[in-house]
Amino acid sequence: MNADLTGPVLAYVEREKDRFLEELKDFLRIPSISALPAHKGDVERAARWVAGALERAGIRGVRLLETAGNPVVYGEWVGKPGAPVALVYGHYDVQPVDPLHLWETPPFEPAIRDGKLYARGASDDKGQMFLHIKAAEAWLKAVGELPVNVKFFFEGEEEVGSGALPACLESNRDLLAADVLVVSDTEMLAPGRPAICYALRGIAALQIDVYGAKSDLHSGIYGGGVPNPIHALVEILASMRGPDGRILVEGFYDRVRPLGAEERVALRDVGVDEEAVRRELGVEELAGEAGYTYYERTTARPTLEVNGIYGGFQGEGTKTVIPAEAHAKITCRLVSDQEPEEIMDLIEAHVAKHTPRGVRVEVRRFDGARPFVASLDHPAIRAAVSAYEKVYGVKPAFTRMGGSIPIVESFHRILGLPAVLMGFGLPGEHYHAPNEHFHLENFEKGIRTVCLYWYELANSGLKG
Amino acid sequence: MNADLTGPVLAYVEREKDRFLEELKDFLRIPSISALPAHKGDVERAARWVAGALERAGIRGVRLLETAGNPVVYGEWVGKPGAPVALVYGHYDVQPVDPLHLWETPPFEPAIRDGKLYARGASDDKGQMFLHIKAAEAWLKAVGELPVNVKFFFEGEEEVGSGALPACLESNRDLLAADVLVVSDTEMLAPGRPAICYALRGIAALQIDVYGAKSDLHSGIYGGGVPNPIHALVEILASMRGPDGRILVEGFYDRVRPLGAEERVALRDVGVDEEAVRRELGVEELAGEAGYTYYERTTARPTLEVNGIYGGFQGEGTKTVIPAEAHAKITCRLVSDQEPEEIMDLIEAHVAKHTPRGVRVEVRRFDGARPFVASLDHPAIRAAVSAYEKVYGVKPAFTRMGGSIPIVESFHRILGLPAVLMGFGLPGEHYHAPNEHFHLENFEKGIRTVCLYWYELANSGLKG
Repeated sequence: MNADLTGPVLAYVEREKDRFLEELKDFLRIPSISALPAHKGDVERAARWVAGALERAGIRGVRLLETAGNPVVYGEWVGKPGAPVALVYGHYDVQPVDPLHLWETPPFEPAIRDGKLYARGASDDKGQMFLHIKAAEAWLKAVGELPVNVKFFFEGEEEVGSGALPACLESNRDLLAADVLVVSDTEMLAPGRPAICYALRGIAALQIDVYGAKSDLHSGIYGGGVPNPIHALVEILASMRGPDGRILVEGFYDRVRPLGAEERVALRDVGVDEEAVRRELGVEELAGEAGYTYYERTTARPTLEVNGIYGGFQGEGTKTVIPAEAHAKITCRLVSDQEPEEIMDLIEAHVAKHTPRGVRVEVRRFDGARPFVASLDHPAIRAAVSAYEKVYGVKPAFTRMGGSIPIVESFHRILGLPAVLMGFGLPGEHYHAPNEHFHLENFEKGIRTVCLYWYELANSGLKG
Repeated sequence: MNADLTGPVLAYVEREKDRFLEELKDFLRIPSISALPAHKGDVERAARWVAGALERAGIRGVRLLETAGNPVVYGEWVGKPGAPVALVYGHYDVQPVDPLHLWETPPFEPAIRDGKLYARGASDDKGQMFLHIKAAEAWLKAVGELPVNVKFFFEGEEEVGSGALPACLESNRDLLAADVLVVSDTEMLAPGRPAICYALRGIAALQIDVYGAKSDLHSGIYGGGVPNPIHALVEILASMRGPDGRILVEGFYDRVRPLGAEERVALRDVGVDEEAVRRELGVEELAGEAGYTYYERTTARPTLEVNGIYGGFQGEGTKTVIPAEAHAKITCRLVSDQEPEEIMDLIEAHVAKHTPRGVRVEVRRFDGARPFVASLDHPAIRAAVSAYEKVYGVKPAFTRMGGSIPIVESFHRILGLPAVLMGFGLPGEHYHAPNEHFHLENFEKGIRTVCLYWYELANSGLKG
């Protein structure tokens, strides 16, 4: 058991929090938009700013890891041999800001209104990654050390797909060796309701191309007598889904871990308001697989969604054509323990089996990602629960996310790291949209939670 | 029984045929492209040229009927009270000529090679309409009268959809009153194998619009839980067709006249080479309704073809979107006695019945056309058989066309006219394409056939 030195650490945070906020504003003034080549210099400036902030916090070995894209800012404090090693991930790049005229204050001039800090990146992810730097600073300045070993890995390409990240992990395996990945880039449930996201869905993406005659044909002359690729595509796609919303691709559910009764209760307790969702989306009713709630369908069950379909005439009015080809884009969301490649194999076999005569079909595959699910019994998760509870006064909810965070999958696949997703954002903070903001309450509580987390992690029983 | 005065008529044709050809060349030199506004003056020049040709042939009452578009050239010879009245339809406008560089000789400089006259409009339709003028001239110059009454109706907008034609028919009902419509704008089967097209399919055209959420949604966050308009559209479309190629829309076949055994033999004798069609189209096999030949499927059976489908992402790669809407374009080819409006009613009811919950569906209708089928026992048809047989030495084949010729339907609907489609074009004469041509053999035989047709019609028993 480590001595509890969190008192002076939290006192330091309380004393310095105004300065922390001013520093964050400086960070937010750098328009580090990774999607726009014109901001290449700003992205590099943000990387150097982060490196400086780490150094001032007392972090050692600060350096820029060169990648095929924007640099990764790395730093570490590894003065506790034998203690767990945490790798903190965040990103210093931000989304574009258009449409600019919808911003109430300029996106790179941070402004505080109603207890919220407005700026591009305030929540996603500069604000959230910065609180990790400040938590480390508080430990190092107040008591001279951290109770665990912490490595920082801040990338500059998250908003454009983290394309260079897997190679960077591959070539820095030793440097990045750790026991747990900590990411603050997700959401709480609501103000005062912290959440730990313990599961992400994976993804398998593919395209079905159907080819008929070698050119478009007149549907008067040939109609009724030749294969129509649209008909074939429609038949193939319709064969994939039953009236109860189940996916009929053979073997699709074979590796899906059934939801336990306890987990279903926990998911129900998250309290997703289906009627509010329905109203917000403007649909007459929600849809999906029979026997599951909306929240389960969108986070804990796999999907097969057609994202796009096209073939033949799309203009105004009518054109009497039988097209030579038709296409569909599909993504599947996967849950543990489905494997992207295997799912694509199953779909390809299904397509082959259901292709009507006379047409030729090709299935093209895109990159996939495995699903992620953390064990709720993992010491690093239990430590996070304690830290949250001490700061927010309530146990965090355990949530699942329907989307994929490919970097989590990469860290798990390449470095073998379990992940703790401690998000401090809130729904409605407009990330990726005008008027992005961050609730200052969660900036401050976030720093305190992370400070306590290192203490809880040190005492969690996790082996270093 | 009228006296057979065809001897001197045919002698006149034989004597004057070189001049006829030179006159046709003059006609073909006028670039009367109705699709291009720059040729508006040429279209009008062609109309005046036709009017002059009719007058020189001895036709009376020649005039231009003003329409909302290009004028109709009208003329008549009605000197046989009590004899049948034939209304001859043709069009003096032509298709555009691009790509110009593919023409071996310029499209508006008629050239003869290998017994074929090359020029835009040579076959479609200047060459074919012109032979009717020359046949009338032969009768009027050689014997001073025609054995029947003939009215000529040559329009200038066929290649752009004959948009002004229905209104023109409506407002000239008395002038155009007749017993039969004669059209020379279709094909023979092959050299030496004349054909009378006795059936055209009608058309019903519509669009299905499916709406889900009020905006596109992220398929990670919402996937599996909200209605996907593409899924709904696919389900609706797939429900319309059975594995045997039958259309499953309730009532779809109710008014379809079954093919008689005799008619099926006649259609088989037309000798469509299915393997040649398959090879030409480059498909592994032909498709369609079980129990019918390719020729029957494409001409004598109704269809429901999806001409276009679109919704969601169509770019390169993948996009994780659930689109807010998806659309399909459909045309049905109809056979007697299907009614376009009724078929659209049936489809709309089918769509309503098969729309999955949660989406909203609209069905939009476009203009339709009724199918056309002539009675093979009609005196005007029997007369055509006799005329063809005398000139070509073989009985004409009775053929069906899979497409629609809307003007035939308009003349039938508005003026109550049965139609005789006496085509003298040949497959491969490149109408609508570079190097359009007309076999001179059929220009000459066509004039003789029409000359004999008026005699046969006068003796057919058709009442005037």
